[in-house]
Amino acid sequence: MNVLGQRVQRVRQNQPLVQCITNGVAMNTAANVLLACGASPAMLSDANESGEFASHAQALTINIGTLSQAIVEGMLAAIQVARQHERPWVLDPVAHFATAFRRRVVAQLLDYQPTVIRGNASEIIALAGGEPAAKGVDSGQTVDEAGDAARLLAQRHHAVVAVTGQWDLVCDNERWARVDGGSAWMPKVTALGCALTCLVGAFLAVDRAQPFEATVAALALYAQAGKQAGMTAHGPGSFASQFLDALSLVESGATDACVTWHR
Amino acid sequence: MNVLGQRVQRVRQNQPLVQCITNGVAMNTAANVLLACGASPAMLSDANESGEFASHAQALTINIGTLSQAIVEGMLAAIQVARQHERPWVLDPVAHFATAFRRRVVAQLLDYQPTVIRGNASEIIALAGGEPAAKGVDSGQTVDEAGDAARLLAQRHHAVVAVTGQWDLVCDNERWARVDGGSAWMPKVTALGCALTCLVGAFLAVDRAQPFEATVAALALYAQAGKQAGMTAHGPGSFASQFLDALSLVESGATDACVTWHR
Amino acid sequence: MNVLGQRVQRVRQNQPLVQCITNGVAMNTAANVLLACGASPAMLSDANESGEFASHAQALTINIGTLSQAIVEGMLAAIQVARQHERPWVLDPVAHFATAFRRRVVAQLLDYQPTVIRGNASEIIALAGGEPAAKGVDSGQTVDEAGDAARLLAQRHHAVVAVTGQWDLVCDNERWARVDGGSAWMPKVTALGCALTCLVGAFLAVDRAQPFEATVAALALYAQAGKQAGMTAHGPGSFASQFLDALSLVESGATDACVTWHR
Repeated sequence: MNVLGQRVQRVRQNQPLVQCITNGVAMNTAANVLLACGASPAMLSDANESGEFASHAQALTINIGTLSQAIVEGMLAAIQVARQHERPWVLDPVAHFATAFRRRVVAQLLDYQPTVIRGNASEIIALAGGEPAAKGVDSGQTVDEAGDAARLLAQRHHAVVAVTGQWDLVCDNERWARVDGGSAWMPKVTALGCALTCLVGAFLAVDRAQPFEATVAALALYAQAGKQAGMTAHGPGSFASQFLDALSLVESGATDACVTWHR
Repeated sequence: MNVLGQRVQRVRQNQPLVQCITNGVAMNTAANVLLACGASPAMLSDANESGEFASHAQALTINIGTLSQAIVEGMLAAIQVARQHERPWVLDPVAHFATAFRRRVVAQLLDYQPTVIRGNASEIIALAGGEPAAKGVDSGQTVDEAGDAARLLAQRHHAVVAVTGQWDLVCDNERWARVDGGSAWMPKVTALGCALTCLVGAFLAVDRAQPFEATVAALALYAQAGKQAGMTAHGPGSFASQFLDALSLVESGATDACVTWHR
Repeated sequence: MNVLGQRVQRVRQNQPLVQCITNGVAMNTAANVLLACGASPAMLSDANESGEFASHAQALTINIGTLSQAIVEGMLAAIQVARQHERPWVLDPVAHFATAFRRRVVAQLLDYQPTVIRGNASEIIALAGGEPAAKGVDSGQTVDEAGDAARLLAQRHHAVVAVTGQWDLVCDNERWARVDGGSAWMPKVTALGCALTCLVGAFLAVDRAQPFEATVAALALYAQAGKQAGMTAHGPGSFASQFLDALSLVESGATDACVTWHR
């Protein structure tokens, strides 16, 4: 009972060290999200040290938002060490369909079996071989449209797949869960999806045996905090500020009510 | 009638995809400004993909705040494709007079005929060949002092030129407009000028035939939102938050009152 | 009398130009902190121009949060010019013990005699040769535990050393001071330590003859603003916003009360 709230408590108490290789837009926001939830973020990404540091970190998250060949090398070095140490890692394939470079990089990353893949509906549909209705980072499709693609990806990559949007879908190759909550202001604040990817890493770090439940817990905390902040925010600026407050203050037990479990 | 408010509506409805190659300080702020106004920002900048992506984006914005040779190559690749596809592009020559590297880069970029050039008074004066009264990114001169330089640049480069500061001046080689509004807190929040450059891109994207009016509309929305946020802010932190709220909430019709048109 | 408040006033009036080579997480936050306090930040870091710009800037700050070989070259170019022009510079050795690359870089930087070294307790202890109780950027030790290490470093490098945490310790090789204030929310907002390093640069810029007092003044302004913001904040998001407000509004005379001087 209260399987999610316990996980929220565990992140707050254990302060897991999470290595986040993310894009230049999201770095500050992601670090603030992790700190608000009790985790300890570290953003180093260069190949000169990303592998060595991955042996210290309890989880790794990879986001391809602003790519370069140098950062790809840093990602690969970190992923290889994380896998050697059996650490969980999360892939966020931001707009991976937008250019040939991105498609090539995301194919290369998928070879290293991410524990969790998190994206918006268009990203998940395109990753499963479908046609994205988007050209940039904002989704042109709904979460409902991405359900089959998510299940296909989960089977193909033996991964937990999370599709986030108006509601969130999480699945592995046996089960799925629906997470409700959030606020209409969330897509109007940049990098909240990227930061959620990093937060999934924090939940995996304290719950390595159950990546499905850990991912649902991270999304439920986000949804509940978004819902609370949405009640008092006047726009995207006040929402961003109140959302960080809510992440740190959410009653951990309130997260379970955001989720419907399916088998 | 209400020529500017209609443009604000068009950005909110059409959600134009704008490729922003900007500096590391401004990326997050610029993305939030564009989202608050209804546009869809994409920040990818590496030469491996910036050109390919420029063929999808509806406008391109270039800001030289934090330069490196690699990012210059990404800028040039994107600009060339944008021009081939007749997409508008905006140049923000941040502190271009401060080093030889910057002067060289800005001269190279100007060869590609920007649709709009936006800067502070010192940047515009120096670009026209005058002496800047500044060593860093903050202007040492007033907008009044930059009027002749702006008109000279507009003629020389067949571009719309915007000088922003205590009030804003926009000119092409026939007309000019004055935009009033804003708040004394605006220069105390970093990257608001850089983010405005990106917002000009969003307005150009939905109004390619009239870059002068599009630029005035972007500045008028900013000025009106700044004025509204300034009424309730207690300092630069609360201003930043309330400014994003105001950008998303401003009554579009209120923007026309900020502008005086001249011929 | 009121030795610190006078320095706060001087930063507000003189608006010193400070070159900050800092990490990707901290750039935006640091620029906002400096602007809120009246200083003029410039974040350019590439070796193509960082040295030339260092001859214009009144102080330089170096932070190794997100390293690469390219940025190290930019740092070294800037430091060499700053030293030629007898400009003060500040070193922030973020998690320097975490990887071999970082240890090598920080050893190289220390050869150029920083005017001030600022870090958390674990960073200062490790820099003095002790064992850090941390693997990432958050300290595992208290300021009390770092006192001897700070004094050792101050002597060894003829530098002012500042250890920040629940309270702050500043020492040179003769004196030390204790700064009290702040808020429990401060470690829950990313990059506030990195931004403080940049603010120390601003205070050194207007007070080159007295780096010890300048450093104490920067920390006292931070502590007092943190204390004020902490009284009304509801969490890390509202704290971040109110802290910037407080930095710009603090009654300069209030800073002296945060400090106990020792000899």
